[in-house]
Amino acid sequence: METNEQPASQPLGVAAIGYAFMGKAHSQAWRNVAAYFDVPAVEQKVLVGRDAEQVAEAAARYGWKESATDWREVIARDDVHIVDICAPGWLHAEIAIAALEAGKHVLVEKPLANSLPESERMVAAAASARARGVVSMVGFNYRRVPALAYAKQLIAAGRIGAVREVRASYLQDWLADEGAPMTWRLRKETAGSGALGDIASHAIDQVQYLTGDTVTEVSGRLHTFVAQRPGPGGPEEVTVDDAAWATLSLASGAVASVEVSRVATGRKNSLRIEVYGSEGALAFDLERLGELEFLDATAPAEEQGFRRIVVTEPGHPYAGAWWPQGHMIGWEHTFTHQIRDFLEAIREGSAPSPSFEEGLQVQRVLGAIEESAAAKSSTVHL
Amino acid sequence: METNEQPASQPLGVAAIGYAFMGKAHSQAWRNVAAYFDVPAVEQKVLVGRDAEQVAEAAARYGWKESATDWREVIARDDVHIVDICAPGWLHAEIAIAALEAGKHVLVEKPLANSLPESERMVAAAASARARGVVSMVGFNYRRVPALAYAKQLIAAGRIGAVREVRASYLQDWLADEGAPMTWRLRKETAGSGALGDIASHAIDQVQYLTGDTVTEVSGRLHTFVAQRPGPGGPEEVTVDDAAWATLSLASGAVASVEVSRVATGRKNSLRIEVYGSEGALAFDLERLGELEFLDATAPAEEQGFRRIVVTEPGHPYAGAWWPQGHMIGWEHTFTHQIRDFLEAIREGSAPSPSFEEGLQVQRVLGAIEESAAAKSSTVHL
Amino acid sequence: METNEQPASQPLGVAAIGYAFMGKAHSQAWRNVAAYFDVPAVEQKVLVGRDAEQVAEAAARYGWKESATDWREVIARDDVHIVDICAPGWLHAEIAIAALEAGKHVLVEKPLANSLPESERMVAAAASARARGVVSMVGFNYRRVPALAYAKQLIAAGRIGAVREVRASYLQDWLADEGAPMTWRLRKETAGSGALGDIASHAIDQVQYLTGDTVTEVSGRLHTFVAQRPGPGGPEEVTVDDAAWATLSLASGAVASVEVSRVATGRKNSLRIEVYGSEGALAFDLERLGELEFLDATAPAEEQGFRRIVVTEPGHPYAGAWWPQGHMIGWEHTFTHQIRDFLEAIREGSAPSPSFEEGLQVQRVLGAIEESAAAKSSTVHL
Amino acid sequence: METNEQPASQPLGVAAIGYAFMGKAHSQAWRNVAAYFDVPAVEQKVLVGRDAEQVAEAAARYGWKESATDWREVIARDDVHIVDICAPGWLHAEIAIAALEAGKHVLVEKPLANSLPESERMVAAAASARARGVVSMVGFNYRRVPALAYAKQLIAAGRIGAVREVRASYLQDWLADEGAPMTWRLRKETAGSGALGDIASHAIDQVQYLTGDTVTEVSGRLHTFVAQRPGPGGPEEVTVDDAAWATLSLASGAVASVEVSRVATGRKNSLRIEVYGSEGALAFDLERLGELEFLDATAPAEEQGFRRIVVTEPGHPYAGAWWPQGHMIGWEHTFTHQIRDFLEAIREGSAPSPSFEEGLQVQRVLGAIEESAAAKSSTVHL
Repeated sequence: METNEQPASQPLGVAAIGYAFMGKAHSQAWRNVAAYFDVPAVEQKVLVGRDAEQVAEAAARYGWKESATDWREVIARDDVHIVDICAPGWLHAEIAIAALEAGKHVLVEKPLANSLPESERMVAAAASARARGVVSMVGFNYRRVPALAYAKQLIAAGRIGAVREVRASYLQDWLADEGAPMTWRLRKETAGSGALGDIASHAIDQVQYLTGDTVTEVSGRLHTFVAQRPGPGGPEEVTVDDAAWATLSLASGAVASVEVSRVATGRKNSLRIEVYGSEGALAFDLERLGELEFLDATAPAEEQGFRRIVVTEPGHPYAGAWWPQGHMIGWEHTFTHQIRDFLEAIREGSAPSPSFEEGLQVQRVLGAIEESAAAKSSTVHL
Repeated sequence: METNEQPASQPLGVAAIGYAFMGKAHSQAWRNVAAYFDVPAVEQKVLVGRDAEQVAEAAARYGWKESATDWREVIARDDVHIVDICAPGWLHAEIAIAALEAGKHVLVEKPLANSLPESERMVAAAASARARGVVSMVGFNYRRVPALAYAKQLIAAGRIGAVREVRASYLQDWLADEGAPMTWRLRKETAGSGALGDIASHAIDQVQYLTGDTVTEVSGRLHTFVAQRPGPGGPEEVTVDDAAWATLSLASGAVASVEVSRVATGRKNSLRIEVYGSEGALAFDLERLGELEFLDATAPAEEQGFRRIVVTEPGHPYAGAWWPQGHMIGWEHTFTHQIRDFLEAIREGSAPSPSFEEGLQVQRVLGAIEESAAAKSSTVHL
Repeated sequence: METNEQPASQPLGVAAIGYAFMGKAHSQAWRNVAAYFDVPAVEQKVLVGRDAEQVAEAAARYGWKESATDWREVIARDDVHIVDICAPGWLHAEIAIAALEAGKHVLVEKPLANSLPESERMVAAAASARARGVVSMVGFNYRRVPALAYAKQLIAAGRIGAVREVRASYLQDWLADEGAPMTWRLRKETAGSGALGDIASHAIDQVQYLTGDTVTEVSGRLHTFVAQRPGPGGPEEVTVDDAAWATLSLASGAVASVEVSRVATGRKNSLRIEVYGSEGALAFDLERLGELEFLDATAPAEEQGFRRIVVTEPGHPYAGAWWPQGHMIGWEHTFTHQIRDFLEAIREGSAPSPSFEEGLQVQRVLGAIEESAAAKSSTVHL
Repeated sequence: METNEQPASQPLGVAAIGYAFMGKAHSQAWRNVAAYFDVPAVEQKVLVGRDAEQVAEAAARYGWKESATDWREVIARDDVHIVDICAPGWLHAEIAIAALEAGKHVLVEKPLANSLPESERMVAAAASARARGVVSMVGFNYRRVPALAYAKQLIAAGRIGAVREVRASYLQDWLADEGAPMTWRLRKETAGSGALGDIASHAIDQVQYLTGDTVTEVSGRLHTFVAQRPGPGGPEEVTVDDAAWATLSLASGAVASVEVSRVATGRKNSLRIEVYGSEGALAFDLERLGELEFLDATAPAEEQGFRRIVVTEPGHPYAGAWWPQGHMIGWEHTFTHQIRDFLEAIREGSAPSPSFEEGLQVQRVLGAIEESAAAKSSTVHL
């Protein structure tokens, strides 16, 4: 079947592929979205993973009706209308393209893929599927933090004037300890890159999302602070970056800086973003994800100051669906919001954002940073 | 049936009574608890409410198999093993006592009841049921904020020495606007009291929970800043307090202050607690519920400072079940944790805390504050 | 000489009495005031203390031309026009009255005196002197924190609407250690009271200063957590309070809470004030004395938040005299501003605030708190 | 006279050149240093400036005995032993070299000079003078913020392990407004550079000071957001940078990022520094200059958190000279401490830090950033 039709009275069947960290997070979103938002009816049909026993257990725990080990069989099922890909990056292209060709709506976790060629093929498949009414989306979940969605609204409404500088950093410390063991995430062949692809991708997506602007050139640097880590048979070489730095030119003339690290001791999950405009400024930290700081520079000088907005008012993005003012929601609901918007696009037949094209564009910026880093940080045009 | 047995292979059937704010919050906990914690299997059997159509819609939305309008019929069902009471306070006693007598495990939202006599009857029913293996618990959900549970651990481990002073405040602003309309919450006959019962109850429970101590005497004051509010037929008299203040003596010799308000402009849901001991101190604010501030006064003076602990480490209470470090969970999961502990007690046949006795003790403190307030703040012994 | 005339071409001669903590702070103000503000010329004539050698050394260090040990001789000098009293509280009345009678302008550190009768005699002397053009002032220096002076402006301009609640606390920890030795500050006969007179006086002055309102009744409590402290000959009894709590009614109908402590582990000098009005709110902490938090509740709900104003703009009170924006001044310059205003009043022949009457009023509130504390916290009318 | 001797009983005579912002700040330091620190006796002899009337007024206001307009005459005076240069950068070399040759101890404001050749001549003059017992120092005053001096101590003591990453930013907003007028600071020929020389110099000095490490290579970028500004005769071209970015390699293998701006709306004077080591981390913001954040990663994971140290304990650098704990000092006293250390070096005959060599080294880093910026951010070795 190449089209994605089901009787209006039937819920959309969902298959999710992957049951690790992201699978757990996406599952909670599917399990809860309809309790808070008016969305098309969905059913958590099947969770797919390689280990039959483990995936069965995860399926039971996370609310899926069935489990399976062969994703090809699953995307062939008539009662599956949506495929949610939480598998590692090197599998994204193959699964996504197959699912789109099978007429399934596809949500794929970021990064879109580990390589540019794969990403480009995915974009082509998504464009072709879109013509047939099939919806696709890449999962930059932080776009659905209410505080960041509200920041975008403020910028779009001109509340900080013309954007000049953006400072984006994403600091973690789970590799600060030299004794932290080797994993597939620290090998170039499996992970593609290190902090760059994993977390700089989020930072760069935010820079473009918040400003509605596009990166046109970059200067970058990569560094591996801990070059060897213990493996089962002794020390192994780390072949990806622990940290990355970049300066980005945006089409509007704005300049953004990006710094990401997995060895920033004491920072657990700190995506910080500051945006400075000609008439105001914004600041955000993911470790306080319910808050947005806003400075209105058109107020009298004496009254200016960064105000801490608790982003839980009914009028804030997504917030009205949840609890009364001041009752914070958690990190996981960035995924709930993502699925809400994905389902809304399916209902409306519209193209949700971020599209695969947007995912590819982020990949291109990451690639340019790698290219610059390999060329003594010399500026690279996109 | 007076005992609460079911085949081990069968899930525990749950009935929840009430589908407003608390019903929505409790429902999410029932829906999600098993995805994160190893608990006895449960089934969301039936949601009970007065309006048949509305409760049916809520049941569908919140994951309940059925809905019903007669709670008496529901607690008589053999496939219902747990009754979760989210109805208004004036109904607590009647439902809880009936459910306990029917051999159902009972979780009741705070406050235990609107009056002391009702609370006392509930305590008696719970004690009698406990002898038959029936579990009961009152829902002071903030005990299950990981940061506060961790604070209790630090205090119990002696990390701040002997507690001397506690400062507890709970500030909200939803009544700051004089034009906010009259509701049942603002009438003494329906609400019992205002900010006192609603939020001072949480503050007082925390004072006793964190310190493991007991209030022995109080001086209190109540005040209504906005004495009339618009009703459907014109201005109506507000007969409960907008704000309350109290000084509490604890059995150990410590002193606690409590201040609560519904007119504290700009404070959305700010339960703040500071605990000062002979060797350290702690500070918490519900508007930043993922953080705990801890000062260790046994460190060299130069190195002392309130440290902001992001309470998301695997070793922190409840936190290991969730996401990696630095990924915050929301307010709603205080309820998920509450149900986890409630189910654990059912499995173990133990008596969960806070018990009805503890709920009654908080009511007695609230009553003493009212008594003191009526007597020019003169100290009242409990 | 009973009048206080000097040739216009001559600087005003200043004598300061006391060279300990407050003497050091006042000295810096006299030494620096003219570098920042346009004030009548002054000369640091003489520093007075009991120990001839020590006062001579202090005089040299702090910029005084001479030192002396007999304050009576000093206030009799024709070249002394201003007497600044930094001696302990039990000496205030005698010196101040003598100086005023000698026609000297008098600045006296808070508290005005240790007893109400002394304070009343000082008020009478100040009133009589005022008729002769002699200026008097009591030193509640925190009125001259730019952030608090600006807070008062905002309140007076109606920016937070009608004030309803004030929360004032002053927390220190220099007595948290049980081994901290006995001093005159811990004996009732020398100190009058403990935390109450020393720091609650500041908190209460701020409540009245910021709101422009007057305390009409109080309920209070005093407590001594560490009842014995090591003296030279063994343990001695502490006869003043370590901590105090009060609830204050204000003439307007507003209610203020006050909590002060010298055993609040980890709080070094934390005078915190929150003011909640019908249309906004303010918050301040002396440990961040260059900042004021302001919430404007007339903004759209989505845009509301406590804004952190860095109070260093040219348009902020006193700030224009100092450094460019964002360059913080220190605690000591509350005294510099105080002397600036005192000198300005001398130049203008006006009556500076806080007057001795205002100092007496604070003493009366403190007295009422003691009275209430002795009567089981029962409310006392002023 | 080529040596710098004076009778032990005589105070050191000081001449300051320049009476604008820096002159005012340095004057306060000379006026107050002896009130807090045990330093050799000094006398504020003469203030030098170009406008006779204005400098006379400034001298009177700031505590100088005399004023003068010809710095050459002043440095020739026998009663002048110290020359403090607060004049604009293009005058530094000429005055400093002349003063050193005249045997005067020299303190020169940063930057050492506007050009590398000038800086190198100054270094040579200082080396030559040092051999004759003449002391020289460049004024990177932020080294004397107690919190930063304490940060250096913690790093040197190994409390954060091996430093890996440093994040340094200095954000201001005084040029955020496009209408802010043209000044000499915005022309390359007078100012040398813009934000780079003015504030990145501070950030870079801190990176090297705190870590005790040396920059070995840089990649940089400069940008001018507002290219024209109103002059008296119409729009004029801004020929210096508004903002600068750099990535720095340090000899140890650590990497530092630097970002500075004069158009960062809402940031008044925010020098922020974060240092991440293998066993801990530090964070500082000049807008809260009395605080240092410290995270000790050797503590149990559950107890880790950035602790806010109020740097006012007697054991903290410089702090013991001032007020009791929690009583903050202001920005200006970075200069007081600088002069304390300068005078101490004169007394001891030691070489104070930062030396002219250190000032030159910072100039070289700035030069390399300009070179890299001109070469598409390509890495430049020092």
